[in-house]
Amino acid sequence: MQKGVTNSQIESVKQRIKELGFDYQLNSGEELTVIAVLGKETGSCDTQVFEVLPGVEKVFRIEKAFKLASRDFQQKDTILKIGDVEIGGKNVVIMAGPCSVESEEQILACAEIAKQKGAKILRGGAFKPRTSPFGFQGLKEDGLKILAKAKERTGLLIITEAMSIEDVAVVADYADIIQVGTRNMQNYPLLTAVGKSHKPVLLKRGFAATLEEWLMAADWILREDNSSVILCERGIRTFSNCTRFTLDVGVVPVVKRFSHLPIIIDPSHAAGYFGYVPVLAKAGVAAGADGLIVEIHPDPKKALSDGAQSLTFSDFSRLMEELKAIASAIGRSI
Amino acid sequence: MQKGVTNSQIESVKQRIKELGFDYQLNSGEELTVIAVLGKETGSCDTQVFEVLPGVEKVFRIEKAFKLASRDFQQKDTILKIGDVEIGGKNVVIMAGPCSVESEEQILACAEIAKQKGAKILRGGAFKPRTSPFGFQGLKEDGLKILAKAKERTGLLIITEAMSIEDVAVVADYADIIQVGTRNMQNYPLLTAVGKSHKPVLLKRGFAATLEEWLMAADWILREDNSSVILCERGIRTFSNCTRFTLDVGVVPVVKRFSHLPIIIDPSHAAGYFGYVPVLAKAGVAAGADGLIVEIHPDPKKALSDGAQSLTFSDFSRLMEELKAIASAIGRSI
Amino acid sequence: MQKGVTNSQIESVKQRIKELGFDYQLNSGEELTVIAVLGKETGSCDTQVFEVLPGVEKVFRIEKAFKLASRDFQQKDTILKIGDVEIGGKNVVIMAGPCSVESEEQILACAEIAKQKGAKILRGGAFKPRTSPFGFQGLKEDGLKILAKAKERTGLLIITEAMSIEDVAVVADYADIIQVGTRNMQNYPLLTAVGKSHKPVLLKRGFAATLEEWLMAADWILREDNSSVILCERGIRTFSNCTRFTLDVGVVPVVKRFSHLPIIIDPSHAAGYFGYVPVLAKAGVAAGADGLIVEIHPDPKKALSDGAQSLTFSDFSRLMEELKAIASAIGRSI
Amino acid sequence: MQKGVTNSQIESVKQRIKELGFDYQLNSGEELTVIAVLGKETGSCDTQVFEVLPGVEKVFRIEKAFKLASRDFQQKDTILKIGDVEIGGKNVVIMAGPCSVESEEQILACAEIAKQKGAKILRGGAFKPRTSPFGFQGLKEDGLKILAKAKERTGLLIITEAMSIEDVAVVADYADIIQVGTRNMQNYPLLTAVGKSHKPVLLKRGFAATLEEWLMAADWILREDNSSVILCERGIRTFSNCTRFTLDVGVVPVVKRFSHLPIIIDPSHAAGYFGYVPVLAKAGVAAGADGLIVEIHPDPKKALSDGAQSLTFSDFSRLMEELKAIASAIGRSI
Repeated sequence: MQKGVTNSQIESVKQRIKELGFDYQLNSGEELTVIAVLGKETGSCDTQVFEVLPGVEKVFRIEKAFKLASRDFQQKDTILKIGDVEIGGKNVVIMAGPCSVESEEQILACAEIAKQKGAKILRGGAFKPRTSPFGFQGLKEDGLKILAKAKERTGLLIITEAMSIEDVAVVADYADIIQVGTRNMQNYPLLTAVGKSHKPVLLKRGFAATLEEWLMAADWILREDNSSVILCERGIRTFSNCTRFTLDVGVVPVVKRFSHLPIIIDPSHAAGYFGYVPVLAKAGVAAGADGLIVEIHPDPKKALSDGAQSLTFSDFSRLMEELKAIASAIGRSI
Repeated sequence: MQKGVTNSQIESVKQRIKELGFDYQLNSGEELTVIAVLGKETGSCDTQVFEVLPGVEKVFRIEKAFKLASRDFQQKDTILKIGDVEIGGKNVVIMAGPCSVESEEQILACAEIAKQKGAKILRGGAFKPRTSPFGFQGLKEDGLKILAKAKERTGLLIITEAMSIEDVAVVADYADIIQVGTRNMQNYPLLTAVGKSHKPVLLKRGFAATLEEWLMAADWILREDNSSVILCERGIRTFSNCTRFTLDVGVVPVVKRFSHLPIIIDPSHAAGYFGYVPVLAKAGVAAGADGLIVEIHPDPKKALSDGAQSLTFSDFSRLMEELKAIASAIGRSI
Repeated sequence: MQKGVTNSQIESVKQRIKELGFDYQLNSGEELTVIAVLGKETGSCDTQVFEVLPGVEKVFRIEKAFKLASRDFQQKDTILKIGDVEIGGKNVVIMAGPCSVESEEQILACAEIAKQKGAKILRGGAFKPRTSPFGFQGLKEDGLKILAKAKERTGLLIITEAMSIEDVAVVADYADIIQVGTRNMQNYPLLTAVGKSHKPVLLKRGFAATLEEWLMAADWILREDNSSVILCERGIRTFSNCTRFTLDVGVVPVVKRFSHLPIIIDPSHAAGYFGYVPVLAKAGVAAGADGLIVEIHPDPKKALSDGAQSLTFSDFSRLMEELKAIASAIGRSI
Repeated sequence: MQKGVTNSQIESVKQRIKELGFDYQLNSGEELTVIAVLGKETGSCDTQVFEVLPGVEKVFRIEKAFKLASRDFQQKDTILKIGDVEIGGKNVVIMAGPCSVESEEQILACAEIAKQKGAKILRGGAFKPRTSPFGFQGLKEDGLKILAKAKERTGLLIITEAMSIEDVAVVADYADIIQVGTRNMQNYPLLTAVGKSHKPVLLKRGFAATLEEWLMAADWILREDNSSVILCERGIRTFSNCTRFTLDVGVVPVVKRFSHLPIIIDPSHAAGYFGYVPVLAKAGVAAGADGLIVEIHPDPKKALSDGAQSLTFSDFSRLMEELKAIASAIGRSI
C-alpha cells in the first residue's frame, strides 16, 4: 500500500479480496503496509484487479512456495517481545532446562542455575513424544504446574511442547512459548491449533525438512494471525552418524536471507552426546543464531530421558561464559 | 506359554503382570500363545518372576527397540482378512485411485477401471495434508460419501487417510483401511487414535524414518489391541533428486526378516513422475511386496493434486498385465 | 548432418571445428550422423557458424551438463557387442563371481557354476581397493592370469577392476571389460586412461553421485573415442542403514530416459548381506536393468573379502531360475 | 614401551614384528614410545608374543577401524610445523586464495591481501578436477610457478592440489602442503603417493565419507611414515539443498576426541555462495577448527571457476577481523 494509506482504503482492499473468494493477511509495519492475497487460485487472478484500487502502490506475486514467512511479505526482521525478553533482536536468548520435567526439585535447581548464568527462558517437557510407546510419557499438567512454580520463583519465561491439538489449551495456559517438535513439523492440525492459541510458537525443523517445507509449515501458523513464530534448527538426518543428527549450521544465513523470522539452534538434540554440545552451541552463536535451547540436568546420569546429551550445571556455567565472549565478538550480547 | 495352556493360567500371568505395574499384550496363534510384558521398567524385572508361574514355557527379552511388531513376538506372518481380501498372503493386493477425491464422476471412473483390471481396493484422499496452507484441502466428509458410493457400485474396499485425531471417527465410518501419512508416522496421538478405532491401518514410512522408528510407530497402533497394521514404503529422502524420493526397495526383505507385518509399496509418491511409476511398481512386486498403492486419474493433467505422478487408465491397464506376469514369475498372483 | 552426408562434408565440418579451437566427437549411426562440438567456450560461439556448412542439417545445443552420454547426442540405445555377448539389447546379461580372486580352484568353481546357470561374464577382483590399508590387497597380475584360465575353460568373458592408471595396461591385457569402482567414479585421470584403452568400461556410480555427475563421468570416457560404457548402480549412501547402501532402483528409468547407455545393477554391494541380494537382483531385472553383477563364492564364510554378501552356489542357482522367469515376464530373456 | 626404553630394545621389537610377517610403525613422542603392529592377520596373533619382550610395557589392540590416525596410537595432538607456521596448536591458521591459478596478476593480488590480513598460507589450484571433461583444467606447472613467485614475494606458504600420482612429484617440488581433494579421498594409489612424498598433506573429507572412512584414508598416508596429515571438513552431501553441501561442523569435536590430527574447515565449498561463506567460517572457528581454507578472488564475477563462492577482498578483510575476535573469545589467536 502507499505511504499514508487510510484505514478505509485498507478495508476496501480487504473487501475486494473477500469478494473474489480469497483470504488476506495484513502486515502493517511502521514504514510499510502489505496485504497478502491468499488462496489456491490466486495464480489465475490478474494483478490489475487490485492495482486500480485506491491506496494500492504495487501488486506483486511472491514466487516462493512460502508466503507469509518470506522476506517478500515482510522486509524487516520479526522481533518477538515476550515480557521483557526480545527474540530476534541484538540479544542472543538462551533457553535452558531438562528434557523432561521430572520433579519440582529438579526443575527449581535447573531454573536457578539458568537464571544465574544469564538464560532468559526455562525449557522442560511435560508432554513427551517418545519413539517407543513403552517409554516415559511425561508428567502432563502436573509438569506444567512445576514449570509455573519455577517461573514464579525466578521470573524466567517458560517454553514447553504441545504434542496434540488436545494439549494446546492447557499448555497455552502455562507456557510463554509453545514448542512444536520436529516430528510434528508437518502436523497441520496442530500447527493450526497453536496458531489459533495466539501464543508465541517455537517451530522445530523436521529432521528431514527442506527450507521450503519448514517455512511453509511456519505459514500454517502465521495465517492464523499469529505472527510470533521462532524457527529452531535441531539437526538433520544424514548418512553421517558420528553425531546423532547433523547440525545444519549453514541454514542460519539462508533463513536470514529468505525469511524475516528469528532462528535459534538446539545443539543438544543435534549432538546426542554432552561432550559435543558446547561446540555446537558456540558454532550456532557464531553463525548468527538468535538464541539457543540447551538441555541441562542436575544429575544427567539419572535423567529419565536424554541424559546422554544433557549438560551438568558446571559444564553449562563454563559454556555460558564462552558464549558471552563469542556473542560479544560478533557485536551481540547474552 | 506351554502348549495346552489353560485360560486360567493365562489369567494368572496377566494378573501377575498387572500387580508388577506393567501392561501386557496377548498374541494367541494356533500353535503358540505369547504374552508380552510391556512397560518402561521391564529391564529391572527378573525373568524368574514369570518363569515360575504355571503354564509358562519360556521367558525371553525382545532386545529390539520394537516389540509387538517384531518376529520375536509373533513368528508367523500376519495375514489381514478384510471382507474377502487377504493382505500378506499369496496374493499381491493392488490399491488404486486418485490422489484426491475430486468428484463422483472421477471416483466412479477410477473405481471401474481399478475393479476391471484386478485391483481390490480403491484409494482416494478426502482429508488432504498439504505442505502449503494455501492448497486444496480435500472434500472431507463429502469425499468419503463419494468413496462409499463407489464401494457400493464395485465392491472394492476403501482406503483413505485420517490426518487428525478429530477425523478418525468419521474416516472409520466409511473406510475399510485408514491410512496414516508419511508426515504423521510419529504423530503418536494419531497412532493411538487409529489403533483404538480397531480398523485396519496402513502406516506409511516417514520419509526419513529408520526401520526401527517405523516399527516402533507400528507398536503404538498394535498396543491398542489392533493387530491389523500394513506397512507402506513410499520412498525416502536422500541426496538423489532424479526421482522425487528414493524408493527403498531393499527395505522389503528387511521388514520380512524382522517383522511379521505385511508391507506394500507406493511407487507413485516415490517416483513423482508418471513415467517412472510402472518401473517402481514392477520392482516392488519382484521384491516381494504384498501389495501396491498406485495413483490413477481419468485425466492427470486436470488433477487437483499429484497430477504429474498419476497414471492414465491405459498406462494402468498395461501395467496391471505386466504385474500379473511378474507376480506369477515369483509364485504369487494378482 | 543431413541424410546422405558425404565423408568430405564431414571432414569439412571437423576442420572448421578445429579451426575454432574446439574438439569434436563423431557419432555415426545407421540413420543419423551427429558431430558434437566440445570445449569450455562453445557457449560463446554462434550456431550459425556451422549451420552454413554443406551437409549440416541442424545445429542445437545440449543443455544438459552431460553431453556425449546424453540422448540428445545419440538417440538410439547403445548396444555393446563383446564376443557374442550383447549388453543393452534384449538379453539381460548376468555377471557373477567372487569379490576377490583368491585361488585358481575358487575361480574355476565359480566360473563353472556361472556358466552352467546362464551367466555370460565372470567377475573377480585382482586389484582390490580397500578402505583400510591393512586389508587384503588382491593377487594383482597373478589373479588376472587365473581369470584368463577360467575364460579359456568356460568361454565366459572377464570383468575386473583397475584401480590406478598404472594398472590399466595390464588389466586391459586380460579383461574384456574394465571396471571402474565407486570410489573412483570421479578419478578423472583414471577415467581418461580407461577411455584410451578402448576396452569396454563398467562405470560404477559413486555412492553419493547425482545422475548428472555420473553421466559427466561417463563423458570423460566417451570423449576418448571409447563408446563402450556400461553404467552400474550399486547403492547410494543414505540415512537408512538397514541395508549397507540403499539400492536406487528408480535411477534405471531415469538413465534410460536421459542417456543411451546400458545400465546394470549390483545387488551385492547394495545389500551387504546375502539374504537380501536375491530380492534386489529381482527388483533390478523387473526395473529394466540390462544386467546384474552378483557376488558368489564356493564357501562364503571363508571369503577373504565381502563374504557376508556373497551367494552360495545353491542360492545363486535358485536365483537364476527366478530371474529367468521375471525377465520373461517383461519380454526379455537371460 | 616402558619409559627409558633403549634403542636396541626397540630394534628387537621391530625385528620380532618383521619375523612374524607384520609391518610396524613407530611413534616416539617425548613421553611415550608406541610401536604399532600392522597387517591383516594381527587379530590371530597373541599379544603375549610381544609382552614378553624386554622394554615392552603394555600390548593392547586398537579396536577402531582406523589405527595410526587414532588417539589410541598417539595421545598427544599432532602439531605440524611448516616453516614458522604451526598447524594444530594455539593459532588458527588461515589459508586463502583463488580456486584456480589464472594469472600472475591474480595470484599476486590474492597473496598480498591474504598476507596483509593475517593469512599464513596461499591456496590456488594448478591441476583442477572438473566434473565435466569440457571445463577449465588448470595451468598445471605454469600455475605452480606463479604460486612459487607469490611465495617468494610474500613469504606465504603454498597449498595446492595433486589429482593424480603423475602430478605428485611436480606438485611436491613447489608446494608446502599437498591437497588431496574430496573426490580422491579413497583414491588409494594417490594417498600412497602423497604419503611417500613426505610433504604435509591436507586430506579433504569425501563428501559422503563417514568419520571412519576418512580416518582410514588418513591411515593410508600415515603408514608411509608421513605423520603430517591435516584433515579438512568441506561439507557433506545430504538432502538439504539450501547450501551446496551441508557443513558438518559437529565433526570437529568428534575428530578431536578420536584422532590426534589437526582439522580445518573449508567454508567456501560447503556454502557454494559467497553470502554464506563468512557465517560458516565463523562457525568453524567457534567450533574449534585449527584453521580455515577460504576462496578469495580479486573479481569473483570473472573467475574461471567457483566465482559464486569466492569472497571479494573487502568481504575477506571484514571476515578476518571477525574471526580474530572469535578466536580470541575461545582463547586462540589468528
